[in-house]
Amino acid sequence: MSPEKIISLQNPRIKNLVKLRDRRPRDEQGVFLLEGYRAISRAVEKGAELRELYFAPEWFLGKNETSLIKTIGENGVNLFELAKHTFAKVAYRDRPEGLLAVASQWKTHFADLHLPETPLLLVVEAIEKPGNMGMILRSADAAGVDAVIVCDPVTDLFNPNVVRSSTGVLFSVPVVIESTKNVIAYLETNKIRSVATTPSADSLYSDTDLNGPLALIMGSEQFGLSDTWLAQATDKVRIPMAGQADSLNVAMATIVTLFEAVRQRTLS
Amino acid sequence: MSPEKIISLQNPRIKNLVKLRDRRPRDEQGVFLLEGYRAISRAVEKGAELRELYFAPEWFLGKNETSLIKTIGENGVNLFELAKHTFAKVAYRDRPEGLLAVASQWKTHFADLHLPETPLLLVVEAIEKPGNMGMILRSADAAGVDAVIVCDPVTDLFNPNVVRSSTGVLFSVPVVIESTKNVIAYLETNKIRSVATTPSADSLYSDTDLNGPLALIMGSEQFGLSDTWLAQATDKVRIPMAGQADSLNVAMATIVTLFEAVRQRTLS
Repeated sequence: MSPEKIISLQNPRIKNLVKLRDRRPRDEQGVFLLEGYRAISRAVEKGAELRELYFAPEWFLGKNETSLIKTIGENGVNLFELAKHTFAKVAYRDRPEGLLAVASQWKTHFADLHLPETPLLLVVEAIEKPGNMGMILRSADAAGVDAVIVCDPVTDLFNPNVVRSSTGVLFSVPVVIESTKNVIAYLETNKIRSVATTPSADSLYSDTDLNGPLALIMGSEQFGLSDTWLAQATDKVRIPMAGQADSLNVAMATIVTLFEAVRQRTLS
Repeated sequence: MSPEKIISLQNPRIKNLVKLRDRRPRDEQGVFLLEGYRAISRAVEKGAELRELYFAPEWFLGKNETSLIKTIGENGVNLFELAKHTFAKVAYRDRPEGLLAVASQWKTHFADLHLPETPLLLVVEAIEKPGNMGMILRSADAAGVDAVIVCDPVTDLFNPNVVRSSTGVLFSVPVVIESTKNVIAYLETNKIRSVATTPSADSLYSDTDLNGPLALIMGSEQFGLSDTWLAQATDKVRIPMAGQADSLNVAMATIVTLFEAVRQRTLS
């Protein structure tokens, strides 16, 4: 089947692609955007469900685009070939690579998680910056976290900048979005200890036992941990800080704490 | 002394401010740009040398701008008040805050460093992305690194995005820019052990002794460590990786390794 060709900027599909940069239409349609060779091929590799693929050969950077498009087309995804200027209109990245996909959103619930006997979870509160969320997801992937739990999120997971900065990890690390209340109940039911990182703690993160079933709790960029989590956490720990108070942002504090947990948990 | 008022976009000072977004005119004039309340007040706090301050009250977000301007003016810095649209032209950030300063560049040489008996240094090779450089500087500050040494840099230290993403740390962490050859000679002369982080190493970073006079060596984003450093390093270590190979970027790998060094060095 030969792909439909779209030239007109007035084409309703083109108008919709531009709309999908905003959260509400994304959520209403249950989809999100993936741009560029790397993001789309990662999504395919990891079994994400693509609905539509738009491409414009005049923007291609390499030689692999054609075979990726072929694979995607063989999976039954609708293909659309765009004129160069039409693609420029729908691309949200500065340097278009001629590939834009519409993929289905998904939702992971606690019931979907299959945790090992001694799980390592990462709970993050109300993260605002897409770049931080992307880095947190990458850190979780690198550290082998069993699930990331996002409490009361401000940034949505399918924001194009989260998708991009997560470099494909979004498709493999289970992410549960839940209210703080439900997360607390889940940890209690599953007897998972919670360790919260906060600058006001007395104990150093590296002096605290991070073995066993564990959830690391990280606050938001602007407000730190909420009172609820400060009261709820089994332990509170801090990262030692030699320089100015705000040198570590939430994503940096997350990776430091996560890798200390990994270190302790793999000690023979 | 009342500040000079500038309205015309043709004013040579305005034209020069726009030029200073590029590296060559910055380097030729030995200056760089600082934008926004936070960056400029940090610079003043830390004793950076400002040459000119441009402000536009119509863009002010808060109430502290006026006293900051007064302080800077009292230090003998030339003040210029811009019309709203004139400031919009020179601002490089999306949301102008009505404050833009021109500051003097500086250069730190090995001879300027006053290292303690057991120094902790961070050596980074050819970092390309300003955001990574900013995060590396913040990590170095948080970890109490004695100096950051940049070998053969691609990004210049006074790039507006490095300045911004370093959140003022640029003014306090000593950064030496040198050729790889000179860095190696310096480490040898000062009997500083070098530990390089590379995915191909056999030893885990956390199983390796990171005490004593130490330089951590980190590669570039795209190419990793150069052969020279791979051959030169006293030890090579890797960070364990549970997920996809590229989940940790150079800035993330740097902070993980640095904080393990801090942990080991502060064990009683």
